[in-house]
Amino acid sequence: MHPDKPHEIDIVKTPSSKINSVDFDTLSFGSTFTDHMLVCDFREGKWGKPVIKAYEPFLLDPSAKVFHYGQAIFEGMKAYKDEHDDVWLFRPDQNLDRFNKSAVRMAMPEVEDWIFLEGLRQLVDLERDWVKKGLGNTLYIRPFMIAVGSGVIAAPSTQYRFMIILSPAKSYYSGEVKVIIAEHFSRAANGGIGAAKAAGNYSAQFYPTKLANEKGFQQIIWTDDATHTKLEEAGTMNVFFRINDTLYTAPVSERILDGVTRKSLIALAQREGINVEERSVYVDEIIKAAKDGSLKEVFGAGTAAVVNPIVGFSYQDTYYELPKLDNSIALQLKDKLTKIQYNLAEDTFGWTVKV
Amino acid sequence: MHPDKPHEIDIVKTPSSKINSVDFDTLSFGSTFTDHMLVCDFREGKWGKPVIKAYEPFLLDPSAKVFHYGQAIFEGMKAYKDEHDDVWLFRPDQNLDRFNKSAVRMAMPEVEDWIFLEGLRQLVDLERDWVKKGLGNTLYIRPFMIAVGSGVIAAPSTQYRFMIILSPAKSYYSGEVKVIIAEHFSRAANGGIGAAKAAGNYSAQFYPTKLANEKGFQQIIWTDDATHTKLEEAGTMNVFFRINDTLYTAPVSERILDGVTRKSLIALAQREGINVEERSVYVDEIIKAAKDGSLKEVFGAGTAAVVNPIVGFSYQDTYYELPKLDNSIALQLKDKLTKIQYNLAEDTFGWTVKV
Repeated sequence: MHPDKPHEIDIVKTPSSKINSVDFDTLSFGSTFTDHMLVCDFREGKWGKPVIKAYEPFLLDPSAKVFHYGQAIFEGMKAYKDEHDDVWLFRPDQNLDRFNKSAVRMAMPEVEDWIFLEGLRQLVDLERDWVKKGLGNTLYIRPFMIAVGSGVIAAPSTQYRFMIILSPAKSYYSGEVKVIIAEHFSRAANGGIGAAKAAGNYSAQFYPTKLANEKGFQQIIWTDDATHTKLEEAGTMNVFFRINDTLYTAPVSERILDGVTRKSLIALAQREGINVEERSVYVDEIIKAAKDGSLKEVFGAGTAAVVNPIVGFSYQDTYYELPKLDNSIALQLKDKLTKIQYNLAEDTFGWTVKV
Repeated sequence: MHPDKPHEIDIVKTPSSKINSVDFDTLSFGSTFTDHMLVCDFREGKWGKPVIKAYEPFLLDPSAKVFHYGQAIFEGMKAYKDEHDDVWLFRPDQNLDRFNKSAVRMAMPEVEDWIFLEGLRQLVDLERDWVKKGLGNTLYIRPFMIAVGSGVIAAPSTQYRFMIILSPAKSYYSGEVKVIIAEHFSRAANGGIGAAKAAGNYSAQFYPTKLANEKGFQQIIWTDDATHTKLEEAGTMNVFFRINDTLYTAPVSERILDGVTRKSLIALAQREGINVEERSVYVDEIIKAAKDGSLKEVFGAGTAAVVNPIVGFSYQDTYYELPKLDNSIALQLKDKLTKIQYNLAEDTFGWTVKV
C-alpha cells in the first residue's frame, strides 16, 4: 500500500460489458457473473493491493493447498436496488465479522476490514447496472478466500487469495420445500468447524442431501451428531419452529452457523412482540407438537433463501404435513425483512448501507 | 475413448527434464514435483481420455465448486526403488478402493479402475529416474480429484478433474514427536466425513494443530467429539498403543480413516505373533497404563510417516513421557514393512506391485 494513498483499490475496467447478453428473467441461481471481480493476494504475511478487474479464470498450481486440504471460506450476501435506483447492502459488517471468524478457525489470515468493506462497495458500485429493481431481484455477492500456496504437506498455506464475485439472482428456491430430519448423517462435530463458513462443510452435505432428494425431499434438517435428538440447522439455512405462537431456534454454537438472516429475523420478531426462544429444539417435542397440532410453522432462514417456509417434514419414515396458515409468521417476517432490504420500509435497526 | 484402443493414455513428454536442478539430499516434503502429471476430466457423466503431460498450472473459473464447497478428495501413496533399479508400488488397489469410497461420500464420480491404476503405473514409469535408491527415499504419489464445474449454488458439480502428481521425498518427520490428546476440538462427526480422505478434513485440523504446536507438540491425537474419552487417530496418521505386549488401535469407522499402513501393520504384527486388538481405546486406560508403567509405546502409522514413534503425550496439562525401549515393536514393524516396500524382504502378502 502506498503510504500517501492508504486503502486504494486499483480498478481496471473491461472494454465492454456482457450485460446485454444476459436474460435477467431466466437467471439460474449462481451461474451468471458480472463483468468484474475483486482480487487481493496475501503474501509474506501481508495483504497486497486489491484490484478490481475483469471476471476471468486464473491459474493455480496442481499442488495448491485449496485442492488438497480445503482451506477455503466464503460468505453469501446480497445487494438490492430501490425505486430511486439506489443500491443497498444488508449488514455487511456482520458478514465481515463472520468471515474473519471463519478465517481464524481455518488457520487463514483475517482480511483487513477496509479490503472487504471498501472492496465490496466499489465493486458493487461499478456493477450497479447488474442490480435490477423489483422484489426478488438481487445481486448475490460471494466474497471468498482460498489457499493458493503450493505443496502437498498437510499444513496451512502461506499464500492466500481473497476474491469477491457477483451474480445477479432471482429468488433462490421455487416450489414447496419438504425436509427430512437427519437420523444418521451429520453436518458438524462438537469442536469442529460447523460454525465456520468453510467450503468443506458444504460438500460434506451433498451425498446425504442427494439421498434425501431421491426420496423427494429438498433439504435435510441436521441433528446433533452425538444423539440425533436436537434439531440444528438445514444445509444452507438456519431453521425456526413455531409452536403455538412462539418461535424456537437452536442457539448458535460451534456446530451452528451464526446466520445474519437468522439474527435479523429474531430482532424483527422481538420488535413485533413475537416471542422467540433460542434454545435446543428436540426432535421429540417437534413430533409431539406436529401430532397435537401445536406445531404451526417450520421455516429456513438464510441469505440465499431469505425465509423459506417448509410444507412438511419426514422423520423415521413418517411424513408430517404442516398446516396452511392464513397468518404465517414466516411470511410476515419475510415481508418485513425484505422491505427493509429494498428500502421500502424504515430501517430502525441501522442495518442497510447505501452503496 | 476410441473403441479400438480401450484404456489408452496419451503421453505428451516435456522437451527437457528439470531433474538435474533438484538437490535430492535437501528435499522438503511435498514441495518439489516431477516433470509430468496425469490429468483426466469428467464431463457429461463420463471420464475422458487420460493425458500424461508437463506438470504445470491450470486455469479455473473463480466460481469453481472446489473453491466454494470443497468437493475435493485425495490419496497418498509412495513408489520405492530397489537395488536392481526396479520400482515398486505398495497396495495401490487399497488406495483406489478408498479413493472411490471417498468419492461416493463427497458426491463425486468414482474414477475408473484402469485410469487410476494404469495412469499411476505409466506416470511413475515415465518418472522412474525421480525415484532414488536407498531406504527413506521415495516418490510420494498424490492422486486427487477436484470439482471444476462453475457456479455458486451449493450442489454437486457436474465436472471434475482427476490428477496424479509426484513429489520425490525423504522421510516425512524428523525429530521427536510429542502429541497432545484433544479435549475440546474434534476431527470428525458421527455420520460425517471422517472416513473419507476429503480435503476439508485436513484444513479443519490446522488451527487446533497450530495451538498444539505453540505449546510444543507436533500433532494431536483426536478423540471422539461427543465425549472426548476415546482415542481415535492423529491428524495424518492412525495411532497404535502398546500396553504390555499387546497393540491396541481404534477400529475403522465413519469417523476413522481406513489407513493402508494401519492395516498392513496389523497384518504384519499378527504374522509375527504379536497380539493386536482393534477396539475403542479410552483416554482413561491409557493414562492409567502410563502411570503404572504398562504403556510401553504409542506410535502413528501413515503413508507419509510410515511408522512414527511418539515420545510422550500431554493430557489435561500433564505430560506423560514414554519409556525408551531397546525392543520397540513400532520400530520392528517399521523395519519389516519398509523391507517389503523396498523389495528387501519377501512379500508373502502380495502387497507390492512392480512398475
